[in-house]
Amino acid sequence: MNDMTSPPSLDALRQMLLVAPFHRWLGLDIVDRSADELILEMPWREEIVSNPKIGSAHGGILSALIDLTGLYTINALGGSARATVDLRVDFHRPATSGPLRAIGRVIKIGQQLSVAETRIEDSGARLLASGRGAYVGG
Amino acid sequence: MNDMTSPPSLDALRQMLLVAPFHRWLGLDIVDRSADELILEMPWREEIVSNPKIGSAHGGILSALIDLTGLYTINALGGSARATVDLRVDFHRPATSGPLRAIGRVIKIGQQLSVAETRIEDSGARLLASGRGAYVGG
Amino acid sequence: MNDMTSPPSLDALRQMLLVAPFHRWLGLDIVDRSADELILEMPWREEIVSNPKIGSAHGGILSALIDLTGLYTINALGGSARATVDLRVDFHRPATSGPLRAIGRVIKIGQQLSVAETRIEDSGARLLASGRGAYVGG
Amino acid sequence: MNDMTSPPSLDALRQMLLVAPFHRWLGLDIVDRSADELILEMPWREEIVSNPKIGSAHGGILSALIDLTGLYTINALGGSARATVDLRVDFHRPATSGPLRAIGRVIKIGQQLSVAETRIEDSGARLLASGRGAYVGG
Repeated sequence: MNDMTSPPSLDALRQMLLVAPFHRWLGLDIVDRSADELILEMPWREEIVSNPKIGSAHGGILSALIDLTGLYTINALGGSARATVDLRVDFHRPATSGPLRAIGRVIKIGQQLSVAETRIEDSGARLLASGRGAYVGG
Repeated sequence: MNDMTSPPSLDALRQMLLVAPFHRWLGLDIVDRSADELILEMPWREEIVSNPKIGSAHGGILSALIDLTGLYTINALGGSARATVDLRVDFHRPATSGPLRAIGRVIKIGQQLSVAETRIEDSGARLLASGRGAYVGG
Repeated sequence: MNDMTSPPSLDALRQMLLVAPFHRWLGLDIVDRSADELILEMPWREEIVSNPKIGSAHGGILSALIDLTGLYTINALGGSARATVDLRVDFHRPATSGPLRAIGRVIKIGQQLSVAETRIEDSGARLLASGRGAYVGG
Repeated sequence: MNDMTSPPSLDALRQMLLVAPFHRWLGLDIVDRSADELILEMPWREEIVSNPKIGSAHGGILSALIDLTGLYTINALGGSARATVDLRVDFHRPATSGPLRAIGRVIKIGQQLSVAETRIEDSGARLLASGRGAYVGG
């Protein structure tokens, strides 16, 4: 991953992503990468609901999505991220249906520490949550 | 929940907690409440693993635990929290076995906005992650 | 400020900004506003130095700049922000000379709570620090 | 600072603290250290005011105090902190008079990264702001 001459292919990133049992449970997929963004998608599943009255996804699920999308964004766009140091999430609107789309963007790629930002949108591109992670490489 | 004369019983809190499908999936239980702390416990399950080489829990699971424990701590200790505004998490050590214990503490109970802090420990009381949520009442 | 039909002029924003003694001490100016950004500038002054060996500005000064730029960005771009609820800052590089440029961008304008993001750059447009504030209106 | 056998004396910490021009401008003093806390004090000065109607201190000043107190707390209590990686602050009440008291506490001392938490109180021990910093050593 530290080979700066060739960032991993989307298929290689998908394979890395799905090594994690929790990512498989979430049903994640990497759907696109541009020069400055990585886009993941997650289908709905009933176990992620927090408030059954409005059918909203749990904040922890949105936090997980922001955490992991940032890490893969760093790795997809020229940096190296092995683990999350810290995470900050703002919740903007209840997420009540899927698929959820997570769009990651690099803030800073550093030698030891990198920062990425992720926003989560619903299928109508409405902003549901957004936040940042700081990641250590190596 | 706004009835300041009587905070809810542990049984009432447990009922509120387990209304959420995601909380049932996590297998959460409220194990204790003191004058200034609320303690939850979560068993291990294989689907929460992030890195299968070391068998570590996903940061999103720890974030979910910090988020929800803070919200129930506010409601258990005299405040009112309906939804999370934002969340901040520091990851200190990989969580590699359960049960996970989440200890919530009130930082500030406000009329509109309250802040709580939660630390997550393993069964040997080692600190795994910690963080804060800001919550709106109502 | 709640009159959604007419956001304040740059001159009105400057007047609001310079009501604060601390903003006058910092020597702040509002230099530009686009459809989605507000740009402030701050000259250097020796009292803001933290580490005299490298002549770097104190993180608290950069934090102040991120805090206040976000608040004025909300007010400049159609929202209402009266006070900061919470603030998160990432420090990317030492700031060793001025002027410092702070570029604010709206993340979400809400009825009660708004979120803005600010990045601080040196005169060569290098990213020094960035972060987010959540603000209450009214 | 990395000599784990002898944490610095309060006088040595004061000398380190006052090397920074911004700390001298703030008029900081270290007033106490216990086994798990470091306490700093800062007098009032008119230039720190944000809202002159209520005479409240600027959030950036409170953020600076949380940032720097956390860093000195790590160094005072057995760790090594050289620079702040990131900072998170919750504002609880307007600070309208001095002196301000900042009480730092270690969350985690790590080999590369340490986390400390600081609360700021007024002279009546009312909580004004609180937050956390992550610091790199070396």
